[in-house]
Amino acid sequence: MSTKKTAVVGAGLVGGLWAIYLAKRGYQVRVFDRRPDIRKMKVVQGKSINLALSERGWKGLIGAGIEEDIRKVSIPMKGRLMHAVDGSLTFQQYGRDDQAIYSVSRGLLNQTLLHCADRYENLELVFDHRCTDLDVQTNTISFHHEKTGNEVTETFDQIYGTDGAFSAVRTRLSRLDRYDYSQTYLDHGYKELEIPANPDGTHQLRNDCLHIWPRGEYMMIALPNVDGSFTCTLFIAFEGKNSLANLKTPEAVNAFFKTNFPDAYELMPELTQDFFANPDASLVMIKCNPWHYQDRICLLGDAAHAIVPFYGQGMNAGFEDCTALDELITKHNEDFKQIFPEYSRIRKPAGDAILELALRNYIEMRDKTADKEFLLQKKIESWFSEKHPEKWIPLYTQVSFSHIPYADALRNGDRQQQIMNQVMAMENIEAQWNSDAVEKKILSLL
Amino acid sequence: MSTKKTAVVGAGLVGGLWAIYLAKRGYQVRVFDRRPDIRKMKVVQGKSINLALSERGWKGLIGAGIEEDIRKVSIPMKGRLMHAVDGSLTFQQYGRDDQAIYSVSRGLLNQTLLHCADRYENLELVFDHRCTDLDVQTNTISFHHEKTGNEVTETFDQIYGTDGAFSAVRTRLSRLDRYDYSQTYLDHGYKELEIPANPDGTHQLRNDCLHIWPRGEYMMIALPNVDGSFTCTLFIAFEGKNSLANLKTPEAVNAFFKTNFPDAYELMPELTQDFFANPDASLVMIKCNPWHYQDRICLLGDAAHAIVPFYGQGMNAGFEDCTALDELITKHNEDFKQIFPEYSRIRKPAGDAILELALRNYIEMRDKTADKEFLLQKKIESWFSEKHPEKWIPLYTQVSFSHIPYADALRNGDRQQQIMNQVMAMENIEAQWNSDAVEKKILSLL
Repeated sequence: MSTKKTAVVGAGLVGGLWAIYLAKRGYQVRVFDRRPDIRKMKVVQGKSINLALSERGWKGLIGAGIEEDIRKVSIPMKGRLMHAVDGSLTFQQYGRDDQAIYSVSRGLLNQTLLHCADRYENLELVFDHRCTDLDVQTNTISFHHEKTGNEVTETFDQIYGTDGAFSAVRTRLSRLDRYDYSQTYLDHGYKELEIPANPDGTHQLRNDCLHIWPRGEYMMIALPNVDGSFTCTLFIAFEGKNSLANLKTPEAVNAFFKTNFPDAYELMPELTQDFFANPDASLVMIKCNPWHYQDRICLLGDAAHAIVPFYGQGMNAGFEDCTALDELITKHNEDFKQIFPEYSRIRKPAGDAILELALRNYIEMRDKTADKEFLLQKKIESWFSEKHPEKWIPLYTQVSFSHIPYADALRNGDRQQQIMNQVMAMENIEAQWNSDAVEKKILSLL
Repeated sequence: MSTKKTAVVGAGLVGGLWAIYLAKRGYQVRVFDRRPDIRKMKVVQGKSINLALSERGWKGLIGAGIEEDIRKVSIPMKGRLMHAVDGSLTFQQYGRDDQAIYSVSRGLLNQTLLHCADRYENLELVFDHRCTDLDVQTNTISFHHEKTGNEVTETFDQIYGTDGAFSAVRTRLSRLDRYDYSQTYLDHGYKELEIPANPDGTHQLRNDCLHIWPRGEYMMIALPNVDGSFTCTLFIAFEGKNSLANLKTPEAVNAFFKTNFPDAYELMPELTQDFFANPDASLVMIKCNPWHYQDRICLLGDAAHAIVPFYGQGMNAGFEDCTALDELITKHNEDFKQIFPEYSRIRKPAGDAILELALRNYIEMRDKTADKEFLLQKKIESWFSEKHPEKWIPLYTQVSFSHIPYADALRNGDRQQQIMNQVMAMENIEAQWNSDAVEKKILSLL
C-alpha cells in the first residue's frame, strides 16, 4: 500500500466522493475547499438545487459505502408528468416499473459524503482554503486562507482538481502549451422557484415524478423535496419575447405565470418574492483536453466537463469519473503514467457525449414532450424493448439505468432515431403502433 | 474633439496601429507593452517570422500614413511556386499580373509603427509594463513593472486589448458571466528554418513568389527577406510517422529533408543547427464573444481572434479590425454604447470566417497545390473571372485583394466550389477547359 501524498482541491460532491476512494487505498489525502465546512451550515432542504441520482451515481455511492444513507432521503421519480396550459396531464414513464431516478438535495448529499470521508484517519478536510495558484513543475499549490488572509503553499505527489466548472486547477492547466479549453454559455438561463408543502407537510403535486411544463421555447420543471416542497426551475431565454429580460416587474411575472403555467401559479404564493430574490442564473458548458498533466495532476467532474442540467447527468457523470479512475488504478496497479492518459482517453469522449445528450434533452423536454408523435414514438420503443430487450434499449434507459459508455449511448441513440423515423412514417401508425407489422419493420431495420 | 483617456494594452502590430488611429482623433493615448522598446532592439531580418501584407493590411497602414515606409522594405510575391520531390516547379499566380502579396519583417513593421505613433504629442509609449489584472468596474489596470518589480495601477475611460493570443485583457473578460471563450491547438506544429542569401546578398531562389514544398500531410514554405535570405517554415504533425516527435536527431532531420525536400536541403547548410536551436512551436486558435465590455473595453487583433497562419491573413484581419472600428467611431459620432456592440456584431463573424478559411488553406497548401486537377480548376476560375470580372471573383482574390467581408467571401467561395465541382466533372475538361462549353456551363450555374 502506497503512502502517496494526495490533494483533492474542491470538497463538493465529486471531490467528497473521490477523496473517499483515495482514502480507501491508504493514500494520505488532504481535501481543500474555499468554503467553510458545509456540515456546520444549515441546509434549507426546500431551497437547494435538486439533483437526480441515477444508476451511474448510485454505483459511485455504493463504492463509498454511503448508498443507504442517501437512499433514505431520496425520492424516486418514475417518469415525467407533463402539464399542458389547459391543466391536462400526460405521464411518460422513464423505464421499467421498477426503475426510477432519485431526487436528492445537493446539500444533504455533500454533508453525508464529508461525514463519510471524515471517518478515514488518513484523510483530512481543510476548509476556507482557496486555491490561488499551482506550480505544475513542483506540484505545489498556493492557497489563500479566507479567514486569516494568510497565503500558504503545500506540495503533493498528486493533485486532483474537483473544483467545479470554474476550477482553479484547470485554469492553471489551460495555460500550458497545446491545452484545449472552451467555455460556452447557453442563450437561455434559469430561475429557481418553489412550490411549498401543504400545511401537513405533504406534497401539493404528485411526488413520484418529475413535473414538466413544456412550452416550446421555454419550460418549467419541479422536483420533489423530502419536506413536502418542490424546487421549481424556469428555463428561458435571456433576451427576446419570452425572456428573463422581459420579466422585470411583479406584474410581468404574475401575468406570465398566470397565462403560461396556470395550475402551478395557484401553488406558488411566494412567486414574485422568490423571482426577484433569486438571480438570473446562467448555464455554462466546459470542455477541455487533456484531463490530466503527466502522472501528477488530474481533473474529475465539472472541472473537466461542466454540462447543462437537462439530462440530470452532471453529478452522475462526475461520480462515473471516480469509479472509472478507481478501476484504472487497480487495472494498472498504481502506475499513473498509464492510468491518467488512459483516463483522459476514455473519459473525454464520455464527457463530450453526455454534454451533447444533455443539450438535445433541453429541446426534448421543453418542446417534444408536448408533442403527441414524440410520445407515441417513445411508447413504441418501450413496447418493442420489452419484447426484445436484447435488441433495443431506449436511449433514456441507456443513459440513466445502465453503465453503457455515454459515447456509445449517443451513437446507439442516433441509429435508433433513424429507424424510428421510418417507423413513424408508416401509414396509420397511431392505430397499428403495437402491431406485428411494426415489430417486423423494426426487426428488418436493425 | 474628445480628451478621452485611453489605454492600449499591447504595442505589437495591431496595438501600434490602433494607437495611431486613436491619437489622430485627439484622444489621450497610453500604450503599454510588457516587453522593452522594440525600436531599441536589433531586428535580425533574416530570422523574423515573415508576414504577408495584402489589401486589408495596406488599408490600415495607409490610414496611419506609413504605407510608403513599409513598401520600401517589402517584397512582392505574385504567386506560389510549388517544388515537387523530383525538383520540378509549378507556378500558380495569386491574382492579376499587377496583384501581389508582400513579404515583410514583423520586427521592422512593428518598429516603424511605433516610430510613427511616437510623433503624436497626445500618445505615450510605456514599456516593461505587464498587465496583471483589470478591474472592469472601475476600468483600472494593474501593471507589474518588469524592471523595477513595482506594481502600479492606472484608470482609464477606455481600454483596448491588443495583447495578442494570450491576452491578459481578454483573460479578465473571460471570467465574466456569459462570456464565451475557446482555445484550440492544431495537432500540427511548426519549425522555423532558413535558406541563407548568396555571398553577394542575392536570393538563392526566385524572390517574387511564396515557395511551397507540398507533401500531403506536411509542407515547408519559404518567404523572401530583403537581406537575400528566405525564412522557411516546416509545418508538420507533432506525433505520428512524419512528425516533430520523429525528428529528434541530426541524422533523422538530415534524412527527412534529403528525402522529402532535396532541392531545399542543398540550400540549407545550417539545417540541423537551426532545427535544434528553434523550438517545436504550436499553433493556437482563439475565439471569444463578445469582443467588448460595455462602452469601456474592446479587443482587437489576435486578442479577439488568433488564427492559424495559412492564409497569411492574421495581421491583415487585425488591421481590418482597426479600420472597421475607426469607421464605426465616425459613423456613430463617438457614441461607444453603439460603436462597441456593433463592432462585436460585425467583426466576430469576420474572425470566425477567416479562421475557417485559414484552416482550409492548410489542406490546400500542403496537399491540393500538388494536385493537377486543383491547379486546372484554379486556371479555369482565373480565365472565367477575366472574361466576367463582375460575375466571378476567385476566393483567393476576395480574401487577399478585396475588402469583401471575410464571412461573405467564405459563403461565396462555397458557392463557387459547388459550381466548379460540376465543371470539373465535365467530360474531357483537361482539353476543353477554356472552351465556350465551359463558359456557358458556368454562366448557367451562376
